[in-house]
Amino acid sequence: MYVIIVYDVGVERVNKIKKFLRVWLNWVQNSVFEGELTESEYIKVEQGINNIIDKKLDSVIIFKLKDRKFIDRNIIGIDKNIQSDIL
Amino acid sequence: MYVIIVYDVGVERVNKIKKFLRVWLNWVQNSVFEGELTESEYIKVEQGINNIIDKKLDSVIIFKLKDRKFIDRNIIGIDKNIQSDIL
Repeated sequence: MYVIIVYDVGVERVNKIKKFLRVWLNWVQNSVFEGELTESEYIKVEQGINNIIDKKLDSVIIFKLKDRKFIDRNIIGIDKNIQSDIL
Repeated sequence: MYVIIVYDVGVERVNKIKKFLRVWLNWVQNSVFEGELTESEYIKVEQGINNIIDKKLDSVIIFKLKDRKFIDRNIIGIDKNIQSDIL
């Protein structure tokens, strides 16, 4: 499956969730990750997010697609994903 | 078509892009909008974003799907979209 994860979390948890998601997915923009996951990987990512965030304050949305082919991606401005590979 | 727009723009342009996108789509989280657009609406949104952002500094990603049915949405923590309707 293909996932896009967007998150809006307390500043004290931003680094932790970013570090965790970097293990599984590609950072594409501030608070946005995307990539391929198997079902079992998805469960691990979901559990990891649950363990990191404060569910009364933070918000994480996981968009799930059966296949990458169902989505087109149009970038306006700079592609921060490429920039982050260079830095 | 169904779109998810995520943006990472200079602080001086955040309100402008948010105000613009609110006309066409649903705010779901900081820097994240989603919703249905026709082809002609999509073109207007794309042009509007082009007019607002600084293409050398800002980054906007538009994820396009032919149909909403191709995507599942899982929220962990709070649903800021509901909260924003109450405020």
